[in-house]
Amino acid sequence: MKVYTRYLKIKSVKKIEIINISQTVKEAVKESGIKEGFCLVNSMHVTSSVFINDEEEGLKQDFINWLEELVPYDFDRWLHNKTGEDNAHAHLKRTIMGREVVVAVTSGKLDLGPWEEIFYGEFDGQREKRVLIKIIGE
Amino acid sequence: MKVYTRYLKIKSVKKIEIINISQTVKEAVKESGIKEGFCLVNSMHVTSSVFINDEEEGLKQDFINWLEELVPYDFDRWLHNKTGEDNAHAHLKRTIMGREVVVAVTSGKLDLGPWEEIFYGEFDGQREKRVLIKIIGE
Amino acid sequence: MKVYTRYLKIKSVKKIEIINISQTVKEAVKESGIKEGFCLVNSMHVTSSVFINDEEEGLKQDFINWLEELVPYDFDRWLHNKTGEDNAHAHLKRTIMGREVVVAVTSGKLDLGPWEEIFYGEFDGQREKRVLIKIIGE
Repeated sequence: MKVYTRYLKIKSVKKIEIINISQTVKEAVKESGIKEGFCLVNSMHVTSSVFINDEEEGLKQDFINWLEELVPYDFDRWLHNKTGEDNAHAHLKRTIMGREVVVAVTSGKLDLGPWEEIFYGEFDGQREKRVLIKIIGE
Repeated sequence: MKVYTRYLKIKSVKKIEIINISQTVKEAVKESGIKEGFCLVNSMHVTSSVFINDEEEGLKQDFINWLEELVPYDFDRWLHNKTGEDNAHAHLKRTIMGREVVVAVTSGKLDLGPWEEIFYGEFDGQREKRVLIKIIGE
Repeated sequence: MKVYTRYLKIKSVKKIEIINISQTVKEAVKESGIKEGFCLVNSMHVTSSVFINDEEEGLKQDFINWLEELVPYDFDRWLHNKTGEDNAHAHLKRTIMGREVVVAVTSGKLDLGPWEEIFYGEFDGQREKRVLIKIIGE
């Protein structure tokens, strides 16, 4: 079995931002030399996500607007914000979008469908966060 | 390490439909000859899901009704629909339901609980889509 | 390849409860002797979740309150409850929170970020349920 581990550092420009990381994950797969296996990509933080969807600006804004309706920032609404934080909403938003993806590696490449792109979804940004890429296989 | 890869083709009858694919995944595990490992089942499209829940008609309709409330079709509401698409809602619905499942394989079988069934959730159907089954183990 | 499988039994005190299982999963990793690989932790039931977030009492209550808004218990609202069940809401709540997590194992430990804790989320409790921990690697 071969194993590859890489930590990405990401610092978003905005508080809430959706960043395409597909290219970096593809490079990691190439660098790993793994031909067949599974690639795990996960946020190492509890206020951000890794998810797969379509690369289209309108859609990314739809996600952000819709998440704000489902889970408003609304400081006074959330008990967690009594601890000195103001990011309760970000914990809940990330839960909707998911922490991680597992992508198949086939013939040395990410086995993605035609529209699948891998995104980092930041909901409490403007500070350095980490994403883990781990690949196991042969 | 043993590896098994299979692509399912699915064309739903309705635009929105929940289809039980447990039997096909079970057959794939058997065919793979893998006794211990992980089985990844994922949609290769960004407007459909793979998820695990209960096989019960009322519940499947509850999911469909509830998703329509959380993320209405509402053409004019979504920026993504300005690109010529009308499926913004399907991208968001699939996000709630999830892209993939990872199921343990133990003693040559999917290690599922008593009520766990694997479903393909289609939110923009009536055309051919693909699901990936990939199993790694020994 | 090394493989480790363990079934946890969990019986919640309340109908809806969020229980930190990080310590048990860490012990499983140690017991497995696996240094590099993937650790799958999943609920074996369709009305409960395994997810990763922050260990903070206010936040756990925020999750419970918010899920009740998104998916009220409301017996008469859900078709699934016509089967003699009253837990339709629990099937939908668990879908929001997720069935499983896949966590990297690096240098013999769960490769978690500083605030990541693993939780079992019960939405139809007060009876014995099972969680599966499966680790593959070397």
